This record gives sequence, C-alpha cells and structure tokens, in this order.
Amino acid sequence: MQIALVIGSTVSTIKDESIRGRKLLIVRKTDTTGNMTGEPFVAVDTVSAGAGDLVLITDGSSARFTSQTDNAPVDAVIVGVIDSLELGGEVTYRK
Amino acid sequence: MQIALVIGSTVSTIKDESIRGRKLLIVRKTDTTGNMTGEPFVAVDTVSAGAGDLVLITDGSSARFTSQTDNAPVDAVIVGVIDSLELGGEVTYRK
Amino acid sequence: MQIALVIGSTVSTIKDESIRGRKLLIVRKTDTTGNMTGEPFVAVDTVSAGAGDLVLITDGSSARFTSQTDNAPVDAVIVGVIDSLELGGEVTYRK
Amino acid sequence: MQIALVIGSTVSTIKDESIRGRKLLIVRKTDTTGNMTGEPFVAVDTVSAGAGDLVLITDGSSARFTSQTDNAPVDAVIVGVIDSLELGGEVTYRK
Amino acid sequence: MQIALVIGSTVSTIKDESIRGRKLLIVRKTDTTGNMTGEPFVAVDTVSAGAGDLVLITDGSSARFTSQTDNAPVDAVIVGVIDSLELGGEVTYRK
Repeated sequence: MQIALVIGSTVSTIKDESIRGRKLLIVRKTDTTGNMTGEPFVAVDTVSAGAGDLVLITDGSSARFTSQTDNAPVDAVIVGVIDSLELGGEVTYRK
Repeated sequence: MQIALVIGSTVSTIKDESIRGRKLLIVRKTDTTGNMTGEPFVAVDTVSAGAGDLVLITDGSSARFTSQTDNAPVDAVIVGVIDSLELGGEVTYRK
Repeated sequence: MQIALVIGSTVSTIKDESIRGRKLLIVRKTDTTGNMTGEPFVAVDTVSAGAGDLVLITDGSSARFTSQTDNAPVDAVIVGVIDSLELGGEVTYRK
Repeated sequence: MQIALVIGSTVSTIKDESIRGRKLLIVRKTDTTGNMTGEPFVAVDTVSAGAGDLVLITDGSSARFTSQTDNAPVDAVIVGVIDSLELGGEVTYRK
Repeated sequence: MQIALVIGSTVSTIKDESIRGRKLLIVRKTDTTGNMTGEPFVAVDTVSAGAGDLVLITDGSSARFTSQTDNAPVDAVIVGVIDSLELGGEVTYRK
C-alpha cells in the first residue's frame, strides 16, 4: 500500500452505477514524514478521509476488494487513515 | 484513477470481438490544472468523451469492470468526464 | 493500451502448453508518430503482426482475455494493428 | 517478488474487517546486498518479520493469495524472510 | 513479458505452502543483446533455468497461471529460456 496525502477532490460525470456518487479524492504519495513525493491521482474514499489526512492507498485489482468497491471499475482506494508512522523506534508522523 | 486529457484517436484493425468497434482514444496524464505530464496511451471510451475533455482513467484489470468492457482484453478505460478539480478550497480546473 | 512498434522476435524453450508455439514478438513503446520511446519487451501476437507494424498492446491480467491467450501465463498481448493515429484533426501516423 | 528491507510500522484506522488488526510494515526495496534503493511503501506482514529483516514482497493481485490476505484489499504482502542472497557463487547477503 | 538475465538465487524462510520449496532466482531485465538494464528482482523458476540464462519473465497476476504457481502468492515467474533474439533479420542474442 502507498502512504499518501489527501489534497483535493474531483467532481465528474460518471455513467457507471457502481462508482457514481462515491467520493473521489485527489491524493499524492508521500515519504514517511508526510511530505509529498508523487504525482496526483484519484482514489475512491471508503473511510471518510478528508483533505490533509495521511492515508493508506491500495491500488490495482485489490482496490475492488472493499465492500464499497466490489466489482467496480476502480484502481485505487483509500483503505485507512494513518494515525502514526514509526521508523527505528522514532515516530516520524502523528496525526 | 488517473486524471488525463483526451488528445486524439486511433483507427486499428482488431480481431477481438469484444473491443472491435469501440472508440479508442489517445490520452495523456495531466496535473490538477489539466496540463499534460505523461506519455500518450490508448483508453477505451465508455462515456462519449471527446478531444479536449479531461477524464478519469481506470487502468489494469479494473478496466474490464464496466458494462462495455466486461471480459474484454483492455487495460485502460475512461470511466468519467471531469467537471471540476478542487485543491485546498480552490478550483484548479473547471470544464 | 500502449502504442508500440514491432521490432523483432524471440525463439524460446517454453514448457507451458498454453503459450508454446505462440509467436512472441519484441516490441517497443512509441509516441503518436511511431517513434520508439520505451524499452523492448515481449508480447504474444494474436493478430498476425510483423516487424515494422505499429500495434496496440494490452498488458497485465487483461492480456489473458483474448481467445488465444485465455488462462495463459502471459502479461502482454498484441490486440490490434494500428492503421492511423489522429491528434487534433491531424493524422500523425498512417500505416 | 521484490527484495526489501523492513524499516518501520504504521498505525492506521482501518474499517475493512479483513485487514484490521494486521501488522502493516513500512518497507523499502533494496539491491542484492540489502542497501535500500526504493521509496517506502506499506506491506502486510504474514511471516512475523521485524525491523531490519530483509524480506520478499509479493505485490499486485497476488498479494491476496496468502491464507492471511485472502480476498483482502491489500496490494503488497511479505511472503518470506530472506536468509541469504547469492550471486555468481558469492554470498552477497546473509541474515 | 520481460527479457531478463538470471544472476543469482535466494534462500528464504517462507510459510506459504504453495511457494515453499520453489526455486527463487534473482533476475535483472536486459536489452535485446542480453546486457542488464534493470534492477534485480526475484522470480519463481518453472523451467529449470540457471545463472547466466536469458529468460522470459511473466509478471503480475499472470505469474499465477502456470501449473507450478497456480493460486500461489507470486508476482513474477520464469516461463521460458530464450534461445535467440532477432531484430531486423539480425540475430542479437544466441544462447
């Protein structure tokens, strides 16, 4: 899973029933302190995340394996809100 | 999902029944303002998108999970037309 | 799908029944004019493509979703021969 | 599979039953001597790995094919702890 | 599929029954002459390949579609030993 920061949202005209109405958030991959390192992409929110949250992103086919995205044409989903990251006994990020 | 701009189309001789006749659009990934940042690739259109539209692309196995691409050998599909993108309370793109 | 140029072929000793005997072509990703931009990789031919053809490549799990590659351990398949590419009303490639 | 070093852990608020309670470790890809070369990402531990262990990571859909991650929305799993790596008859890493 | 060179092997403590006992080889992607261009990763051997062999690698979910890796948590498998590569009528590699 990727560590990513929620930075925004998208409003889109979507025909597919299974993702219409889902919250589609814009995220960017970060390092272990929460600093953004990757390009923006869009992930389906399943955990009521919001802008500024550091989140865990599951991508690829596994993004369809939550109860909210089952069999939906989505390739990235937010599966958790990160509370803290720890490296070598040191907390590098805390919500 | 990726944010991408539709820039063109392809005409191809395709044997597979499940994708023959589908509209195959050329797209490039963009940033959150719609400026192109990625290399061109081809995605199946399922939402009547056209050149100049900013769209949401689902890739990988999930591209097969729309009603129009079910079980088809496709790895990228346009699932939505983006109406607006918002970052930090500011609209960075509007159709 | 990727736009790629067929540049060669490979002869391999393969044990798996489902891909033994298949034509395995060497391809490289191109831009929209047919100029090579990517590294060489190998794709299963399902459309009688040949060296010099610009082709459409489906990769990942969807490469198994043609009649010739069903359930085979392949991750890239040629699904079409490109006849023309058009960007902004201008033809950038014609076979 | 990737060769990676376990460097830390994450505490997250996760709704999905299938991954709640799982140990989520932060890892970085390494070369064949154990020196880190890649960016940090998060993998589900299924082998009781710990910080400092060199591990084998399976990613993508195959990450769901362990008994502990079956049908879970995870895209990276630790499937083994590396005891040694050997190149050209020379041991380049030993636990 | 990728063209890769087998450069070594790994000994790992693996819990999963389906991959325990399998030969796990270290490989690096090459160009069409067999010169290494990519970073090392680990692939399951299904064709009795050895160090120095140029091989065909299938990755992603399709790595599970050989008789030896069926439903196993593996994301890269060696499906063939390359005998020769030919570009533009010229042999660029011969075993």
